[in-house]
Amino acid sequence: MAEFTSKIRTIEWIDTYSRMVDQTKFPDHFEYINITTGQQMFDAIKTMIVRGAPAIGIAGAHGVVLYAQELEKENLTREDFVKQLLEKADHIAQARPTAVNLMWAVEKQKEIIKNSKSDIKTLIEELKANGKKMELEDIEINKKIGDFGATVVPKGATILTHCNAGALATVGYGTALGVVRSAFANDPTIQVFADETRPRQQGARITTLELTMDGIPVTLITDGMCSYFMKKGMINMVCVGADRIAANGDAANKIGTYTVAIAAKYHNIPFYVAAPLSTIDTNIKSGDDIVIEERSHEEVTHINGKSICAKGVKIINPGFDVTPHELITGIITEKGILRPDYTESIKKAFEA
Amino acid sequence: MAEFTSKIRTIEWIDTYSRMVDQTKFPDHFEYINITTGQQMFDAIKTMIVRGAPAIGIAGAHGVVLYAQELEKENLTREDFVKQLLEKADHIAQARPTAVNLMWAVEKQKEIIKNSKSDIKTLIEELKANGKKMELEDIEINKKIGDFGATVVPKGATILTHCNAGALATVGYGTALGVVRSAFANDPTIQVFADETRPRQQGARITTLELTMDGIPVTLITDGMCSYFMKKGMINMVCVGADRIAANGDAANKIGTYTVAIAAKYHNIPFYVAAPLSTIDTNIKSGDDIVIEERSHEEVTHINGKSICAKGVKIINPGFDVTPHELITGIITEKGILRPDYTESIKKAFEA
Repeated sequence: MAEFTSKIRTIEWIDTYSRMVDQTKFPDHFEYINITTGQQMFDAIKTMIVRGAPAIGIAGAHGVVLYAQELEKENLTREDFVKQLLEKADHIAQARPTAVNLMWAVEKQKEIIKNSKSDIKTLIEELKANGKKMELEDIEINKKIGDFGATVVPKGATILTHCNAGALATVGYGTALGVVRSAFANDPTIQVFADETRPRQQGARITTLELTMDGIPVTLITDGMCSYFMKKGMINMVCVGADRIAANGDAANKIGTYTVAIAAKYHNIPFYVAAPLSTIDTNIKSGDDIVIEERSHEEVTHINGKSICAKGVKIINPGFDVTPHELITGIITEKGILRPDYTESIKKAFEA
Repeated sequence: MAEFTSKIRTIEWIDTYSRMVDQTKFPDHFEYINITTGQQMFDAIKTMIVRGAPAIGIAGAHGVVLYAQELEKENLTREDFVKQLLEKADHIAQARPTAVNLMWAVEKQKEIIKNSKSDIKTLIEELKANGKKMELEDIEINKKIGDFGATVVPKGATILTHCNAGALATVGYGTALGVVRSAFANDPTIQVFADETRPRQQGARITTLELTMDGIPVTLITDGMCSYFMKKGMINMVCVGADRIAANGDAANKIGTYTVAIAAKYHNIPFYVAAPLSTIDTNIKSGDDIVIEERSHEEVTHINGKSICAKGVKIINPGFDVTPHELITGIITEKGILRPDYTESIKKAFEA
């Protein structure tokens, strides 16, 4: 199989700092920013300069290294160094409290801090190496997801996606858009339809940007249009990411995903979720137990700072919805494509 | 049954001119504009100062009167007056070529011009009177639609609507929102969820405005959210307008309507179309024969003049979609609620 090389590297550790794409400048600018201190990293995560669960995780891991570099200069005893670094690690893990990957990645660094017997200088090298390893693992996992996913993409398919589960949400390849990249490498007649994804328009701002940068044809549509194109036979497959997947296969993803899944079912179009196994939380029995974050009303009422509606209107702004497992054709993971019954196939994937 | 009095009069003939709400200023301003010449009316229709099929029809009828008033000043022979006025009528009928109501209303005025035996001064009075009659008929028909529709609104219901089929699309009561008004008059616990309706955001800009002005509670949601709220049991009924209905009940309406209809079906929520019989075109056998207007790409790529996506992205922007009759619970008309089999019930409604 041909390999796809993406132009995008969302986050990368370089010698003594973390370089990342500044995602607050989209779609007008594609710029890199060098993060050189722990507090800068905390702010970058909080203000969404970096976004996407896997990318945020790596950012957290890099943040711990940045704090370690700063503490090294304070000539602390090794004991004090470890104590203060663990506090800083806990601090950065709170930059976005709902991001599971952030806590997971920081925890991995904390394990090294706690278990290492090395001197401060060597410990910092160990943390750097671990951050780098996590970076490369993320790309590796995405590529596996992409390659498994490519096997179910029909020749010349138009793939509809919602939100951005792309290179810009991960280290550099993407989950749902990783499937697109792997498929495109072997079949350049593949194309993408990207839902705008109101309210925050990640589909318009981010997905169209990363796909055009990588030379993959993309058509932007508004969220209500999907059924129109499905009925016309212009969409052959839906592939989306996930923020959290329950033990029974119910998948939480950006608001609007569930509507797309219903439309796909109505038109007998396969609907795939692409996500690493780390997204599956087997402690959560079903989607009913996934708490949905209510977000700022301004996301709905304003676009680019300008109000789009009457004063006095009420707003409810759930950030995510849950697509029930019965609408999901398959869950594409780094260990293969899981099929219903998901309770069984998920259990097996974790045992394998 | 209690009557609802709306604060909104979208278009009204006053003595020698037409007064209308300037719909290009929404949602920031609610302003009236006086249209005093035929060409001004042509431009008002073309630039969407007035919009909504029924309102555009009345605007066309008023435009003919305005042209007649201007021609009167030219001291033409009656024969030349009639000839030139018919040309002006044909001109204004072309301001928005796809608007069936515009052609229909102008045609009504042309019949008077052709059939009247009166002198020029009296003929103009006849055209004025006919314009006024059409205005009042539109409100009357809307109120009948509203009252029939109110009988199927559950007590305390939350009604989801898409786009704007309201007072601001008609002379002053609305079709889908006419149903809301009639229901609200008798049950003030009724409330509305309004889809934003990308790309042109008529739901956000217009529906929220007219409902808040009339004191009816309204929650704005993005187009992808409908299924989320349906699943939560927070939506009890969908009611939308229509731009054209085929003989078999297939209904063309603003893009996105079909997606809402599929979601309603999936959740067993009744889906009603509210429209006057004049919207039904019995010459069109099914929705497959309704031509869908492709609109400007900027409607998708830009909001308030600012680009929301990457350069080089492809766009397809269908203005409407067709909801197949099997997804429609009933078509609410001024002659009652039509039920499946629509081919039969539509035929009967026209015979009655």
